[in-house]
Amino acid sequence: MGERVLLTGAAGRVGRAIIDDLADDYEWRLLDRDPLAGSQPGEVVVADITDDEAVREAMEGIDAVVHLAGDPRPEAPWDSVLANNIDGTQTVYEAAVETGVERVVFASSNHAVSAYETDDRTPDVYRPDDEFRLDGDELPRPGNLYGVSKAAGETLGRYYHDAHDLSVLCVRIGNLTKGHPPIDYERGQAMWLSYRDCAHLFDRSLQAEYGYEIVYGISDNDRKYYSLERAREVLGYDPRDNSADHDD
Amino acid sequence: MGERVLLTGAAGRVGRAIIDDLADDYEWRLLDRDPLAGSQPGEVVVADITDDEAVREAMEGIDAVVHLAGDPRPEAPWDSVLANNIDGTQTVYEAAVETGVERVVFASSNHAVSAYETDDRTPDVYRPDDEFRLDGDELPRPGNLYGVSKAAGETLGRYYHDAHDLSVLCVRIGNLTKGHPPIDYERGQAMWLSYRDCAHLFDRSLQAEYGYEIVYGISDNDRKYYSLERAREVLGYDPRDNSADHDD
Repeated sequence: MGERVLLTGAAGRVGRAIIDDLADDYEWRLLDRDPLAGSQPGEVVVADITDDEAVREAMEGIDAVVHLAGDPRPEAPWDSVLANNIDGTQTVYEAAVETGVERVVFASSNHAVSAYETDDRTPDVYRPDDEFRLDGDELPRPGNLYGVSKAAGETLGRYYHDAHDLSVLCVRIGNLTKGHPPIDYERGQAMWLSYRDCAHLFDRSLQAEYGYEIVYGISDNDRKYYSLERAREVLGYDPRDNSADHDD
Repeated sequence: MGERVLLTGAAGRVGRAIIDDLADDYEWRLLDRDPLAGSQPGEVVVADITDDEAVREAMEGIDAVVHLAGDPRPEAPWDSVLANNIDGTQTVYEAAVETGVERVVFASSNHAVSAYETDDRTPDVYRPDDEFRLDGDELPRPGNLYGVSKAAGETLGRYYHDAHDLSVLCVRIGNLTKGHPPIDYERGQAMWLSYRDCAHLFDRSLQAEYGYEIVYGISDNDRKYYSLERAREVLGYDPRDNSADHDD
């Protein structure tokens, strides 16, 4: 309570899932490139994530940053993810260190490791009886340049933790959809993240103690091939949803 | 013999070690940002590594690329490594795919993992009886933003291999010095790479068959804490030097 959190990319889906559920639990400062429509549960800052000075200003008096801003398109071209996701994320870490922010929670993505889903492994890997698991210790294996940019953001976080003692959590977010999991889409069901599990995960990420961590951000799906162990252990993440419960 | 190899960053130290020893073994095209002094064992191209079109042109008719170009300074500022090392390396991979080049050998660096050298581990880790080893499967842990950029180049290589079937070898180069290893510098002795071992390693990297690999590029030093197993196994790397042999 009273913790001051800067959330970047506040207009995006992950941002909405977090803010809607945790509106009263933190003192929010919401940053987005575009003005936010409607009333917001906190101060609003309109700035581009690659603008060093604006980002630094937005961090004044802030305890923790939830960094979601970036080009969210898996098919985004290189120039965009280079600027918005890689350079933008470095801007955030650098500003955090300069202004004395203590932790950064970074929205990484399933696309940082999606090339583990080889032709050999799919679609079995999306099925409950398959035993293949990723646990966060594996090398990145991106399925697209967007995924490359997210892996780079994770490595930047590793550096800023080691060099500047910043607490950094990278959440490889699965497939966030509201209400129910993707229908007729095994991959989406494997990595579904419900809105309430998403908000709970980010709440835990702002409360728990850690140095540098990579965790998977999905619900407790029967079909999962991402391990939730690290998220449970380090964060106390306790998901309530499972895409299998929506099979009817 | 007769294999046509584009070497980028030909003026650098690693480039010289390779070209001096392997001048007659390949048909070289040597690229650098600055004109190369003296006579060269091959065609010379003056171009910046971030110039998409020039890089693509330089790859016409080429079988393999040895990509060394980039800002080599461990203390290089972010803007420079972002442009020269990250964007420049993506330019190289992209051009390789577009022009049908079959393999890219990428000069990564010990700095991609140098933050494993924690206060707890050093200086013991640089000593012969210490058993800590890095083998290339571990997550990057850069000691500086230069190291971050090299780790990003490795991840880009993973993507271009998976998505476009390009053969990619990442060599985490140690401490290349001519003649003898660094004196009174335990870290440098641990990761010494002699000139002839360097040339031999890159020769093997152009001959061996592989998909995507990360190997350590050092001599067979008693003080090493990088495993040479993968380089021996995949490439047939058989180093002849050891920094301990220069202890007198």
